[in-house]
Amino acid sequence: MSTTTPRNALRVALIGTGFMGRAHAQAWRTAHRFFDLPREPQLAVVVGRDPERTAAVATEFGAEGWSTDWRAVLARGDIDVVDICTPGDTHAEIATAALEAGLHVLCEKPLANDVAEAEAMVVAADAAAAASGAVSMCGFSYRRTPALALARRFVQEGRIGEIRHVRAQYLQDWLSDPDAPYTWRLDRERAGSGTLGDIGAHSIDAAQWITGDAIIGVSATMQTFVETRPVLGEQVGLGGRAAEGAARERVTVDDAVAFTARFASGAMGVFEATRLATGHRNSNRIEINGDRGAIAFDFTRMNELDYYDAADDAGAQGFRRIQVTEAEHPYTAAWWPAGHGLGYEHLFTHQVVDLVRAIAGDGAAEPGFAEAAGVQRVLAAVERSAHDDCRFTPVEPAPTTPSREKEHLP
Amino acid sequence: MSTTTPRNALRVALIGTGFMGRAHAQAWRTAHRFFDLPREPQLAVVVGRDPERTAAVATEFGAEGWSTDWRAVLARGDIDVVDICTPGDTHAEIATAALEAGLHVLCEKPLANDVAEAEAMVVAADAAAAASGAVSMCGFSYRRTPALALARRFVQEGRIGEIRHVRAQYLQDWLSDPDAPYTWRLDRERAGSGTLGDIGAHSIDAAQWITGDAIIGVSATMQTFVETRPVLGEQVGLGGRAAEGAARERVTVDDAVAFTARFASGAMGVFEATRLATGHRNSNRIEINGDRGAIAFDFTRMNELDYYDAADDAGAQGFRRIQVTEAEHPYTAAWWPAGHGLGYEHLFTHQVVDLVRAIAGDGAAEPGFAEAAGVQRVLAAVERSAHDDCRFTPVEPAPTTPSREKEHLP
Amino acid sequence: MSTTTPRNALRVALIGTGFMGRAHAQAWRTAHRFFDLPREPQLAVVVGRDPERTAAVATEFGAEGWSTDWRAVLARGDIDVVDICTPGDTHAEIATAALEAGLHVLCEKPLANDVAEAEAMVVAADAAAAASGAVSMCGFSYRRTPALALARRFVQEGRIGEIRHVRAQYLQDWLSDPDAPYTWRLDRERAGSGTLGDIGAHSIDAAQWITGDAIIGVSATMQTFVETRPVLGEQVGLGGRAAEGAARERVTVDDAVAFTARFASGAMGVFEATRLATGHRNSNRIEINGDRGAIAFDFTRMNELDYYDAADDAGAQGFRRIQVTEAEHPYTAAWWPAGHGLGYEHLFTHQVVDLVRAIAGDGAAEPGFAEAAGVQRVLAAVERSAHDDCRFTPVEPAPTTPSREKEHLP
Amino acid sequence: MSTTTPRNALRVALIGTGFMGRAHAQAWRTAHRFFDLPREPQLAVVVGRDPERTAAVATEFGAEGWSTDWRAVLARGDIDVVDICTPGDTHAEIATAALEAGLHVLCEKPLANDVAEAEAMVVAADAAAAASGAVSMCGFSYRRTPALALARRFVQEGRIGEIRHVRAQYLQDWLSDPDAPYTWRLDRERAGSGTLGDIGAHSIDAAQWITGDAIIGVSATMQTFVETRPVLGEQVGLGGRAAEGAARERVTVDDAVAFTARFASGAMGVFEATRLATGHRNSNRIEINGDRGAIAFDFTRMNELDYYDAADDAGAQGFRRIQVTEAEHPYTAAWWPAGHGLGYEHLFTHQVVDLVRAIAGDGAAEPGFAEAAGVQRVLAAVERSAHDDCRFTPVEPAPTTPSREKEHLP
Repeated sequence: MSTTTPRNALRVALIGTGFMGRAHAQAWRTAHRFFDLPREPQLAVVVGRDPERTAAVATEFGAEGWSTDWRAVLARGDIDVVDICTPGDTHAEIATAALEAGLHVLCEKPLANDVAEAEAMVVAADAAAAASGAVSMCGFSYRRTPALALARRFVQEGRIGEIRHVRAQYLQDWLSDPDAPYTWRLDRERAGSGTLGDIGAHSIDAAQWITGDAIIGVSATMQTFVETRPVLGEQVGLGGRAAEGAARERVTVDDAVAFTARFASGAMGVFEATRLATGHRNSNRIEINGDRGAIAFDFTRMNELDYYDAADDAGAQGFRRIQVTEAEHPYTAAWWPAGHGLGYEHLFTHQVVDLVRAIAGDGAAEPGFAEAAGVQRVLAAVERSAHDDCRFTPVEPAPTTPSREKEHLP
Repeated sequence: MSTTTPRNALRVALIGTGFMGRAHAQAWRTAHRFFDLPREPQLAVVVGRDPERTAAVATEFGAEGWSTDWRAVLARGDIDVVDICTPGDTHAEIATAALEAGLHVLCEKPLANDVAEAEAMVVAADAAAAASGAVSMCGFSYRRTPALALARRFVQEGRIGEIRHVRAQYLQDWLSDPDAPYTWRLDRERAGSGTLGDIGAHSIDAAQWITGDAIIGVSATMQTFVETRPVLGEQVGLGGRAAEGAARERVTVDDAVAFTARFASGAMGVFEATRLATGHRNSNRIEINGDRGAIAFDFTRMNELDYYDAADDAGAQGFRRIQVTEAEHPYTAAWWPAGHGLGYEHLFTHQVVDLVRAIAGDGAAEPGFAEAAGVQRVLAAVERSAHDDCRFTPVEPAPTTPSREKEHLP
Repeated sequence: MSTTTPRNALRVALIGTGFMGRAHAQAWRTAHRFFDLPREPQLAVVVGRDPERTAAVATEFGAEGWSTDWRAVLARGDIDVVDICTPGDTHAEIATAALEAGLHVLCEKPLANDVAEAEAMVVAADAAAAASGAVSMCGFSYRRTPALALARRFVQEGRIGEIRHVRAQYLQDWLSDPDAPYTWRLDRERAGSGTLGDIGAHSIDAAQWITGDAIIGVSATMQTFVETRPVLGEQVGLGGRAAEGAARERVTVDDAVAFTARFASGAMGVFEATRLATGHRNSNRIEINGDRGAIAFDFTRMNELDYYDAADDAGAQGFRRIQVTEAEHPYTAAWWPAGHGLGYEHLFTHQVVDLVRAIAGDGAAEPGFAEAAGVQRVLAAVERSAHDDCRFTPVEPAPTTPSREKEHLP
Repeated sequence: MSTTTPRNALRVALIGTGFMGRAHAQAWRTAHRFFDLPREPQLAVVVGRDPERTAAVATEFGAEGWSTDWRAVLARGDIDVVDICTPGDTHAEIATAALEAGLHVLCEKPLANDVAEAEAMVVAADAAAAASGAVSMCGFSYRRTPALALARRFVQEGRIGEIRHVRAQYLQDWLSDPDAPYTWRLDRERAGSGTLGDIGAHSIDAAQWITGDAIIGVSATMQTFVETRPVLGEQVGLGGRAAEGAARERVTVDDAVAFTARFASGAMGVFEATRLATGHRNSNRIEINGDRGAIAFDFTRMNELDYYDAADDAGAQGFRRIQVTEAEHPYTAAWWPAGHGLGYEHLFTHQVVDLVRAIAGDGAAEPGFAEAAGVQRVLAAVERSAHDDCRFTPVEPAPTTPSREKEHLP
């Protein structure tokens, strides 16, 4: 028998053992199995607060080991990448420390819990890039949906033309029941915001990324329908059901947010995000209409993109349902024959693929922290508008930073 | 052979020969053929500005005659109902004259081009009701879509529960092409507003009617993407194509409008209306999520209502696609066996059915002018907000009128 | 006031007062209101067995009169067209008498209850055409669905290419409940066959008409799932519910039929028709795959045609959902703006349009009796195969008749 | 840092490096990461004919080693499971050898290229089970689609009631282009049959498994539309494009097959499978109608099951679109929150889960070889019928074997 040889390893410390931690773990295990990568990821260590759970997740995904001390892990000297899957209030501290240690960073979205933190992270990322070549990326995973990447390609190819309308809805219903249990995601201290930062941020990033256009101002409203929720003890995933008479915790974030937006190009945006849209488990929808075509997408059918070409023959025009599973489509050639769809976790695998390539100098790590801080500024404008009678509120311009300055040089 | 005998006639003067005029004409001809009505409508006269076209429409729909002088028609003495299908700038004058003549009035929506006109019409309607028993109704025809009437019934039955979300989009694309021709619908003087009053008004009415709830404030943005359009000469329907080098007329209305809304109950609304949504010919969508269920509708599939019942067994929950074509459904028992759908014009037939019954004392004529003026006040709030930096703008309360006062008596 | 003038009348005797009679009545009343017709139909008389019901239907649709004696009506001398909407066992006798009287005939499908009767009707039609110019047509109304007419056009334009697959399903569920009541449609004597002739015939005609190809042989199976049904008294429409303990009548026709078919071109067909497809009220589906494209249709969404163009760019291929409501589409220009759909009864209106034009010499009356007899021969082959162990059974060739001979002359 | 400990290993030899080999490899790597398994699979060796490709696949999936000699691998003594992903002509030989060596076997479908081979494999499996406790399973992977497993559960729960109709279509289009290249799947010697065995077998197995009912006879037709295909050299996946003027090889299998079927219960089946259904990349559809409900599924939307409950309130009935992604659904609790769908490869992961559990004595390995041989007998009946003028052809009864006998003991 012939034996197989290991490749050039890329050692990863994964911080966080919740839903996101597991999704990332599977991605690190899988990316190099389907994509030809310059370096082979190794899940070196899983880091969490609870020893028992952390050990279990490390075992589950075949990590070499586990730890409850992220600072110690950063100091080990055998880690290449720090992957941050913790609540938003810890992003800035961990990411900054990792960057200062010269490590590459993948940080879950939203980048931080406020703009100031986000901008500090941009500064740290710029400094680390200059000092050690460290690569940093924010985990807006929906960009890695083949259908949305195809939508972006269609825009870039001019198939949609000049964009007039963007409408994005991110509809979930796991809080529809007033007795759905309390979780850290409902605590402003830890989560920064509620639906806005958790899922609205995805819509904002997707809209700006697909269109290649920037939101320059918003008029917003936010609402909390259910003021308190029963406490379940340690809550890891979504869902679950509290006991009768359980104590209730105050919800300090938004249940739902809606805003209209103006893009730099003049396009009109309408956004809505909610966790109380009864009947919608995870319907992340976006539609774009331009003067030459249109696209429509719903994550509940993530392998499909609806595309309308206004240049089709009169009488034969209509939205095409493209099954985004073909060799021509983004990411999909690595997987199965046409018509054999992918699932949710593939987004994270694709994210790892792009990150590993960027670390090896092949392409940019997108979105970088500067771009992710841009989403944070939109989130901030949404909150300001919602607290200012929905008044149209410009998105603050980005401060001048080395990375941004570089972009504007000829 | 035995002969058939005529029934108690209800003589109608139809004013307007455009798209709406034809839809109404067919309704007057058809309602009593499928529904058991207390009086049988007769299309006595068609009134229009252009003699040739008016004569043609009168012939087309078998009217007894035609005229270019609506005032003369009102004075004839043999008319029971005046049906107003003209542009919005003429509604108040014609309706008021008809009501003063003791005639019943059906008036196309939006009721008027501004709130003051609308309120004057309410006063006229109240006075006529008191003086002569004249019935007045505003033509929000989408209420007569069986699927939307079913949605309203579901809300009333408590199937949706406490409503949290209303999202309504009315998407058309007949102005998507920058060279789509100019029409009176693009002239603020005649149309009052553009997309807002033409199709946004339908969404507002549908949302309030289905939920039984009132919009109490809005935050809005309006936009005109294409500033001038080529002139075609007399333009009757939608669509068409101007000659190269045709003169261009300035568009004085909105191409698109979007607004968030607050309902009296605390529900959150998100509305969008546009005529530049490439790919959408006439997609009038509304979705409602409550704590017990949800509904979703798109007029492109007008015979379907999607309904989600949160009380379905866990593991067997999902939106049901109801074909609203059954004996149990609103209006449909009069037509064909289950599964044999209706078309657009049936809305107008159902509207006539309800009006004729109301005239005979069987049920109310809904929406009456007071209720339609309420939609006008929402439209006005939308415009004010759009001109005030999108600021949250309360919908003005209705003035006290006899009809409204009566509603609040015990 | 100016009065309108009547046009050149075409006087119609409608025989049958059931579901089909009402659909035809509305068509006769409506066709000339939306289409420019050379003659204006007048519903002169409605004929039925039951005086009360017949009078009611005549009044309902504004016919001049009614009768229970179809022979007397044929002899009146003031009738131009006889429209036969009775059960299949009476078609041959009435149609032959009408043709011999020199009248035009529209006969509901299936043309007859067996091939011999159908062929006799072809002979009568040919003779009448020669003698008096009488026009005859069989009412395969689904041909007049704009989406199916568009499908046929696409085939004719070569958009589908060489056809390989035809799959057609006609799924209803009104007999799904074993206690759904007995009707004449379940009596072999009156209906000829059950699901096969009632709805399977529609699929056969649609498949042959859209493809322009002929079924040359079949392998079939037929089944009756529910052997007896409760009796309700006179049953007019579909549906209803018998009393507990009602007497039960034996069902002498098929509940369901399925067959594979070979077309002259070599295409493969798969057909299924049933009235026990729980959940499907009236799902008349057809899909066709060729080497250049494909179409898919379901009557539950009658205003849509799905179309796949294999020549679309790689990576942008998919079924287009065409809303068949545009000026470019068959029949639809006469109605409403794009995106405003039609309903079931419009099929019959379009049928009248085509018939009236054919009577005036503008186009052929299709399908004529010869073509409809061709469907009857396929039905017969299906029944023979089902009784011969599903063995492949060629469709009998048509006998030589004057009309068919003429078609083969150079 | 704490280290993680390996679990009780289950060592796997994977034979085959094509599309199926890669899907299985990923499953072996993943199953224990998401499911709590009694033993942890280890991909010990990948076996293939081509050394270079085999080594590449072994490296790609992190196997310990690779080999071109499957017999040598079976003799190594450190293998627990042999996973056979080769063309059908080699199944019997490899599986029998593995079973004789006391190894567990997972064999891709169809079990063999003819009934005799399949029955020999059943005998071998029975003997091995008795001698060494070896477990054998055939890879009808679609059973592991959560939506189809839910469909089966619904049938078992009585939600569908007495089944009347099964209609299954497996539609692909990768051979729609007459110049799509030749592959071993078009060679009767290697593949046994064409579309029938490759994808029709999936429909047959799914239909019998979901209904719990057996096909007892069929009436079939088979067709080859494209007689020769250009040769590309070694062809691994599907698709690709031959050079102009390439030599052409004769296709010796069916392009398409259609048959009607009778189930033991009296239900009627209609099956179609084709690789020339232009527009359908991989549309594996099945619909079932019973007297209490119905289900409908299409693999292009693999995370959805449409379910109709005839007991829903009148007026609120319709097919529910269940997103089969919830904790209550088969397999899905191990993955992501509700609404986050799975992909094609998850079927194989679930298959591994069930197999590993069966090996550890937890549940049966289904379908075992006896059940898979039953599918083979249906395939044989289809071929016989197709060569006997489509005549109804009973499915041969299974021979008495130890495993089957045991099933019938009290």
